[in-house]
Amino acid sequence: MPNTDRISKPTSRRMSLYLRVLQSQLDMQTNSISSKQLGAQTGVKDAQVRKDLACFGSLGRPGVGYRTHDLHQALLCLLGMDQTWKTVLVGAGNIGRALLAYPRFRNEGFDFVAAFDQEKKTVGKRIAGLVIQPMSELKKSVKQNKVQLGLIAVPPDAAVQVAQCLVDAGIRGILNFAPKRLDLPSGIAVVNVDFTDALEQLAFEIRLSNNDIKVMK
Amino acid sequence: MPNTDRISKPTSRRMSLYLRVLQSQLDMQTNSISSKQLGAQTGVKDAQVRKDLACFGSLGRPGVGYRTHDLHQALLCLLGMDQTWKTVLVGAGNIGRALLAYPRFRNEGFDFVAAFDQEKKTVGKRIAGLVIQPMSELKKSVKQNKVQLGLIAVPPDAAVQVAQCLVDAGIRGILNFAPKRLDLPSGIAVVNVDFTDALEQLAFEIRLSNNDIKVMK
Repeated sequence: MPNTDRISKPTSRRMSLYLRVLQSQLDMQTNSISSKQLGAQTGVKDAQVRKDLACFGSLGRPGVGYRTHDLHQALLCLLGMDQTWKTVLVGAGNIGRALLAYPRFRNEGFDFVAAFDQEKKTVGKRIAGLVIQPMSELKKSVKQNKVQLGLIAVPPDAAVQVAQCLVDAGIRGILNFAPKRLDLPSGIAVVNVDFTDALEQLAFEIRLSNNDIKVMK
Repeated sequence: MPNTDRISKPTSRRMSLYLRVLQSQLDMQTNSISSKQLGAQTGVKDAQVRKDLACFGSLGRPGVGYRTHDLHQALLCLLGMDQTWKTVLVGAGNIGRALLAYPRFRNEGFDFVAAFDQEKKTVGKRIAGLVIQPMSELKKSVKQNKVQLGLIAVPPDAAVQVAQCLVDAGIRGILNFAPKRLDLPSGIAVVNVDFTDALEQLAFEIRLSNNDIKVMK
């Protein structure tokens, strides 16, 4: 029976981690995996693994574990990876081009149907099988191809305008690599990836472990 | 007086967000900023902003706000951005090369001193001013240059070995772009950036907002 209970973001992140482990277990042709093994490979406590996967109860056998293939399928379905997501890239600079060529996106159901840039020298170039189009084509292309996801890899100053353009064209979610906060209408999902933010977190954690964080009172 | 109280990760992430806003305010030569303005631009509630910044109490003036320049400096110091972090890149594929050329890293105090790859065809190439070196030089270079941070952008199968090599050489923290969990000794900070994970989160959020998440009981 379908259950449309809300699943929290931290839970869905752990589900992504379990999915990674299951994929590698499938590659190794392992038939079953225990909550302890899943926990050890994801850094999650066994009890939390069992709680998270309780909704897939029928896929687990006490003392044996979960059937790898079935749990993998169930998690793919839960995370929306059992379908193909039509995706466009906006901003074909260094980062954008690297993302377009990133093989794991395609493997996991993200299908780049078009890529756009505002630079004349970039438009017309072919990257990972796609010809970079001018920004003027963005709205039409998103509508015609019924694109659901947009990757934004433009400079911060351009990010808000690009996001608005994607939303106007009917996009459902944005993966934002521009270091700029996007305020979008409710119903439009946004996930931010900020490299500098990640490096700052790293520097901060090193200082924490050094015990040299000093806050002036 | 220095205060070495622990600051939580969520707090430090919000501090990063405030820092971004303060940087843009400095560019616009704004002298002061209120907690309300900081909140509006970061998506954090005013009360939370005031609580987070209470440790910088002397920098705020009731009814006026925080002195932009002074709060900016205090946050830079708190987040460890008032120093230069010597950094190496391992893995000069598409993603690695894009990261090496990412201008904001250098602007914010991350100084790439060397880059490494195991591919013979990549070694010797010059990217963003650095000549890519063979992996055999990694340990020596990290030690000689007293490198503190490592960026890993290698295929998942190679990530664990590369991380161990960096740790053995004396690195303090790793920013890991490989879709592979790293189990490192305590005292070594790790921040993971997984693009596919981010896209999965996006797909999941769209399905949540569609109300079409189905969990089989």
